[in-house]
Amino acid sequence: MTAYDRLAARFARIATIGEASSVLSWDAATMMPAGGGAARGDQLAVLAGMSHSLLVAPVVGEDLAAAEATPEHDPWRAANLRLMRRAYTRATAMPPDLVEAQARANSACEKVWREARRHSDFAQVRPHLEEVVRLTREAATALAPALGLDPYDALMDGYQHGMRTADVAKVFAEYETFLRRALPQAEERQARNPPPLRPVDPFPVAVQEALCRRLSERMGLEFTHARLDRSAHPFSGGTPVDVRITTRYDETDFTQAVLAVVHETGHALYERGLPAAWARQPVGEAAGMAAHESQSLIVEMQACRSDAFLSWLGPELLSAFGGDPAPYLPDNLARLWRRVERGFIRVDADEMTYPAHVILRFRLEQALVAGSLAVADLPAAWNDGFHALLGMVPLDDAHGCLQDIHWYDGAIGYFPSYTLGAMAAAQLMAAARREVADLDAALARGDLSPLLAWLRAKVHGQGSLFEFNDLLSEATGKPLDPADFEAHLMARYLN
Amino acid sequence: MTAYDRLAARFARIATIGEASSVLSWDAATMMPAGGGAARGDQLAVLAGMSHSLLVAPVVGEDLAAAEATPEHDPWRAANLRLMRRAYTRATAMPPDLVEAQARANSACEKVWREARRHSDFAQVRPHLEEVVRLTREAATALAPALGLDPYDALMDGYQHGMRTADVAKVFAEYETFLRRALPQAEERQARNPPPLRPVDPFPVAVQEALCRRLSERMGLEFTHARLDRSAHPFSGGTPVDVRITTRYDETDFTQAVLAVVHETGHALYERGLPAAWARQPVGEAAGMAAHESQSLIVEMQACRSDAFLSWLGPELLSAFGGDPAPYLPDNLARLWRRVERGFIRVDADEMTYPAHVILRFRLEQALVAGSLAVADLPAAWNDGFHALLGMVPLDDAHGCLQDIHWYDGAIGYFPSYTLGAMAAAQLMAAARREVADLDAALARGDLSPLLAWLRAKVHGQGSLFEFNDLLSEATGKPLDPADFEAHLMARYLN
Repeated sequence: MTAYDRLAARFARIATIGEASSVLSWDAATMMPAGGGAARGDQLAVLAGMSHSLLVAPVVGEDLAAAEATPEHDPWRAANLRLMRRAYTRATAMPPDLVEAQARANSACEKVWREARRHSDFAQVRPHLEEVVRLTREAATALAPALGLDPYDALMDGYQHGMRTADVAKVFAEYETFLRRALPQAEERQARNPPPLRPVDPFPVAVQEALCRRLSERMGLEFTHARLDRSAHPFSGGTPVDVRITTRYDETDFTQAVLAVVHETGHALYERGLPAAWARQPVGEAAGMAAHESQSLIVEMQACRSDAFLSWLGPELLSAFGGDPAPYLPDNLARLWRRVERGFIRVDADEMTYPAHVILRFRLEQALVAGSLAVADLPAAWNDGFHALLGMVPLDDAHGCLQDIHWYDGAIGYFPSYTLGAMAAAQLMAAARREVADLDAALARGDLSPLLAWLRAKVHGQGSLFEFNDLLSEATGKPLDPADFEAHLMARYLN
Repeated sequence: MTAYDRLAARFARIATIGEASSVLSWDAATMMPAGGGAARGDQLAVLAGMSHSLLVAPVVGEDLAAAEATPEHDPWRAANLRLMRRAYTRATAMPPDLVEAQARANSACEKVWREARRHSDFAQVRPHLEEVVRLTREAATALAPALGLDPYDALMDGYQHGMRTADVAKVFAEYETFLRRALPQAEERQARNPPPLRPVDPFPVAVQEALCRRLSERMGLEFTHARLDRSAHPFSGGTPVDVRITTRYDETDFTQAVLAVVHETGHALYERGLPAAWARQPVGEAAGMAAHESQSLIVEMQACRSDAFLSWLGPELLSAFGGDPAPYLPDNLARLWRRVERGFIRVDADEMTYPAHVILRFRLEQALVAGSLAVADLPAAWNDGFHALLGMVPLDDAHGCLQDIHWYDGAIGYFPSYTLGAMAAAQLMAAARREVADLDAALARGDLSPLLAWLRAKVHGQGSLFEFNDLLSEATGKPLDPADFEAHLMARYLN
């Protein structure tokens, strides 16, 4: 057995433990009775501990050195080895005490945050967030020299391998300039149109559920390898051969359920399309969080909210829910689901203003990690930054710096992925439209298969062979470029 | 940290991995899409491998020796240490190659058995069963000297700690004598009664499901710590704080679903009642498979099929399903659910003839392990034995030696637990009736709480503090004695 083969066997074992954890996490969010919560936490912690021990064992370092000493000509094996090295470097760079301290601090902070958000009381969670930020800074400081990156980049790299602050800042600055010009124009144009009609409730849960499943199948998700269930927050989990997507149902409004399922189906199709020959190897995994978000958003925002697809979806919705057909006319659906509206809450934001929410967080979290912004000054900095971007000041911190779980749960460096994904989705869609002749004609039949075939070849099937910008270059001819996203928004909101 | 504390921490870790496996197995039987099957097998195998490695590590042997050298006066800690030693002895006595060979052979044989049973073709599975038996014999030979037991006892001890062939054979022989006399009398008496009326179908699945859940809750299962789902075969799984019971529904007959739920609720209540202070320690586990079956059967057979409980259940069923009330009268339910009928299939057998099915298997599997019966001669030996016990010969092997999965899956030494459990259930019920004044009055109100309180004190809360016979002695004043079971059958079928 070569050093590479030993490593491949070990990483397969680690990935298999990860699959078990993933199913257990899904179960916790969908099936588990409340009384099982504490024990489930223990189960996941034990699995994470075993997985970590497998990864940081000294023999891994020895085998990596031995494998790296042998020239490797196969690009997949070479990439796999690089990714193993990166995982090992990240895991061994972190002192075990710090990992444990972070787990404890993040969990404690997240609990208090739930209360603090409910009462819009930043002071309550402030000491906890200070601890989380302090430990995150320690982690970034430990990771940075090992990875040869700046501290904030070392964090961001954990979510989307290959992205650097300089690239992101440039793309975001360009978008900010675009937004200052485009948003008022879009608002003005929208004001000239009639307001959308709302479909009349109720929308029975069973009808919504059957419709969601039908849509998901129609988009290419095979339910021999997937499930659709309910959870408090929609997500996509499970494993590539057993993906588990979830949504939630509101009998007064089917929009949330349907669009969440479409979004999570995009994530699930990515997992299903990963290269089976490289299953359970680092190179066989999705190419990062921004790449993943690009796949949910190309389905949700690019394909399913397109004129073509809405012309097919409208009659489908009408036949599911019945009643007055007017709200289900494609034009009305477009006005309903493609509205620009400045608001304080990121998760409710439209696709044009959403990046502003992310840009604000990207700048603030850099400052927190750099130490140039104290946690105590976060609410004021948030409100100033929000005002500068969208011209409004949140009424309270629940609508400001307390709204998202991420920082309070220790996820710092993650936010950029959302907007990088949105931009990548537009760039990929533009390329697909150039290369796939009948793409919109198929969408108008509710058929995503030409798009899916292109994505399988260009994105899904590539696993982690390329870093994010290289993946985009291979697929679209250029690295991440906000121009396609801006062109998409102009066509949709300013034409 | 003392050696004992180190062992306790390690066994807690092993138990926590076991919890994860248990939830994943439940998921495989209830939720998992078919396409997830192979990967799930890998996940369970990796968890089992890690658990095994934790158990057989040399430091466990050292810590056991050190802990055993210190006098231990607390009976729970002393029992815990003994059980740790037993687990270590069992695990280390088996050569790793043999464990792997068994896993492969059992899995291969079980697959072929499904086909062979469908076609009633013993010859098809014979070579596979020969391999399973050969390896089981090897395992028994490896375990026997380590445990100081005869080979077959070493196998049986793995399912129900403390039971020996000599004890079981004596109890079974006594029962056989009873059966030869009692069965014809029961049949004769039954023939004099009118045949039972069948409730008129259909019984909608949703109604059955709601009823089953209500019954299970009524019996004391709290759904903050439990779930009820569907699977091909009913079972009880999950963990003590998160028990998962299953059943299957047939719209033409609710009997199977209702009685299965009642049975699995008995298993689940045992798990829920295990001593929380000893959670994840060997002494905190259920006392074995016979003990577990005693808890499902005391609920299903002793409590729920009693006259008292049926007098409450009849109106409940009628109000759930409606229609003609006559089939739901308690007398009719008693005739319907308490019928003696000789048949070829164990899982369909009534409580009086069921032990004959087990006695046959107990004798045959001893002979297979001893080598005095060749696999090739099993069908003939089965048919002879069945005829000797119940006076009939199966038409084919599908109704004979091919009917149960157990042997073909490598579970040899398990069958006695069913009947030991049935006998223990009667013995425990007799003791509970002596000690709990209002037990039957409560059952007539559909209230199992007095029985449950007694079982929690005498059985559930005792975990594995005692071996099976000692548990019964503590609870009922005597070790396993078929007299109470026989008295129960006489009262129910011959009074």
